[in-house]
Amino acid sequence: MPTFHSLSLIVEIVATLAFAASGLLAAARKRLDAFGVCMVSGVAAFGGGTLRDVLLDRRPFFWVQHPGWVWALLGLCLFALVGLRGRHLAFTERAILVPDALGLGLFSVLGTMGAWSAGMPAIVAVLMGILTAVFGGVLRDLLCNELPKAFSDHQPYAVLAFAGGWLAIGLDRLGLPESATLGLAALVTSALRLCALQWHWRLPAWRALEPESRQD
Amino acid sequence: MPTFHSLSLIVEIVATLAFAASGLLAAARKRLDAFGVCMVSGVAAFGGGTLRDVLLDRRPFFWVQHPGWVWALLGLCLFALVGLRGRHLAFTERAILVPDALGLGLFSVLGTMGAWSAGMPAIVAVLMGILTAVFGGVLRDLLCNELPKAFSDHQPYAVLAFAGGWLAIGLDRLGLPESATLGLAALVTSALRLCALQWHWRLPAWRALEPESRQD
Amino acid sequence: MPTFHSLSLIVEIVATLAFAASGLLAAARKRLDAFGVCMVSGVAAFGGGTLRDVLLDRRPFFWVQHPGWVWALLGLCLFALVGLRGRHLAFTERAILVPDALGLGLFSVLGTMGAWSAGMPAIVAVLMGILTAVFGGVLRDLLCNELPKAFSDHQPYAVLAFAGGWLAIGLDRLGLPESATLGLAALVTSALRLCALQWHWRLPAWRALEPESRQD
Repeated sequence: MPTFHSLSLIVEIVATLAFAASGLLAAARKRLDAFGVCMVSGVAAFGGGTLRDVLLDRRPFFWVQHPGWVWALLGLCLFALVGLRGRHLAFTERAILVPDALGLGLFSVLGTMGAWSAGMPAIVAVLMGILTAVFGGVLRDLLCNELPKAFSDHQPYAVLAFAGGWLAIGLDRLGLPESATLGLAALVTSALRLCALQWHWRLPAWRALEPESRQD
Repeated sequence: MPTFHSLSLIVEIVATLAFAASGLLAAARKRLDAFGVCMVSGVAAFGGGTLRDVLLDRRPFFWVQHPGWVWALLGLCLFALVGLRGRHLAFTERAILVPDALGLGLFSVLGTMGAWSAGMPAIVAVLMGILTAVFGGVLRDLLCNELPKAFSDHQPYAVLAFAGGWLAIGLDRLGLPESATLGLAALVTSALRLCALQWHWRLPAWRALEPESRQD
Repeated sequence: MPTFHSLSLIVEIVATLAFAASGLLAAARKRLDAFGVCMVSGVAAFGGGTLRDVLLDRRPFFWVQHPGWVWALLGLCLFALVGLRGRHLAFTERAILVPDALGLGLFSVLGTMGAWSAGMPAIVAVLMGILTAVFGGVLRDLLCNELPKAFSDHQPYAVLAFAGGWLAIGLDRLGLPESATLGLAALVTSALRLCALQWHWRLPAWRALEPESRQD
């Protein structure tokens, strides 16, 4: 039976590739050059965890300790620059939805529990989980001079990372073993994201921005 | 008689709320969703001090040490999302001008003196004061994909933080006690900001951008 | 005969001024006010090295250790605000191309070798060199709410910093003395940049973004 650790590593690899591919797509939309493609993909893949580590003052970064990831990213970008055709872009966009959802679950839960076990307050730990899972995409959009999609598309995404982080902390407080806590919370978060995609769940709109009714 | 410390705490709370509200307004203008509203408000409120602490390599951040602030921000955002109506936005915009001016004074002076008493060179300490008071707003505008207002509205704002920082360092060098230094410099800075608002002071325009006269 | 150290210092000063001037020009295009001009120039001049130092967790920053640089930048900005005329802008744009190319070479090589001699993996060291030389400009464009030029203009710029970093690491591994390594790699990088400017070298476009041919 596969251990939690080996499953988690597979999800991590697949999800990081999906995050990098989201950067490729954003760079394609903006018609960036080779350097822009590599930087935007790299930031989409590693930016969230790096920002979290800067805030928590942790070194070395993941990609400094394992520079093979940087090489893999470089290879992916070169492959995309040479081999990808216009008609592949829409396919890529759909293909990354599932691994991206797995990444949302795993990275938010790992980010939360990393900060939580380092003694951060619960709300701060949950925020670190959100940063890990979501801010690669936010930084990607900032570098592309776009309003961050995670702030404006009214899809449940960061909100699920928030829920997943609290679930992980709750399970940990109940005394579950670490791998059960991580696995269960990540699974629930990813499943909720897939449900949100399947049934087009939307965050409620902001009331101040609705047209006001007469009798109000 | 209220001590400087208790007064300063009140100003800090009121001004942080005003900074957060400026984030709410920016998020409303961009029609962000719930997550965007919380992040932009949070960055407007805590981003300046956090950036300063990253640059000075200080931990824990204010909001990590006092996570009650994160909860308060979350509550404020939920309240705004549910309770605020379109007609409240213009009122909020005017209502935050005075507490924002108090925050400009207090945070620029506290940021300057914190770096100054840690042995930074004077010009660097003043810059840290400006970051503390002004860069929450700059980061807020960046996250909203806007040109930072503080860079482009030709109002004396950061320039007053600059002046207030130097005033604080000058008073400290004259040997004034700490609370007198902080209180006086913050008061002068805030008063200047209120004057600037009242009489519509403007920074001089850049000469290179004016139409050139014939005889030039 | 001038030593490497004194030559390097001259290039550093001239190139930093050119980076700051690129910030001035960007600020002029966006019609920023005095504070915006100073911040965008400062970030263009010092932002790359500062970001690298934040990522490598190094303190104090260059401009904290040598606050004279902050004063010089402030002086340059005041001079530009008062003395520069519209007709000087195009001239400035051309005049900074050569010192900017020198800075590209020197800063990418210094940034790479600094990280390399601190024990970073080679690919990470090269990335730190790119950050040092190129990300001042990227942050400048972000603050101006523009798509970063370095990501989108299809000119060989960051790519040359990449090549120069690897050249420096290669020369170091061959056992060349430090000043020869730094000088030679910086010289080659700068010369390639000048060639790229002279003969309008372009990075190849991304194939996915070309119109697809019939027989494909």
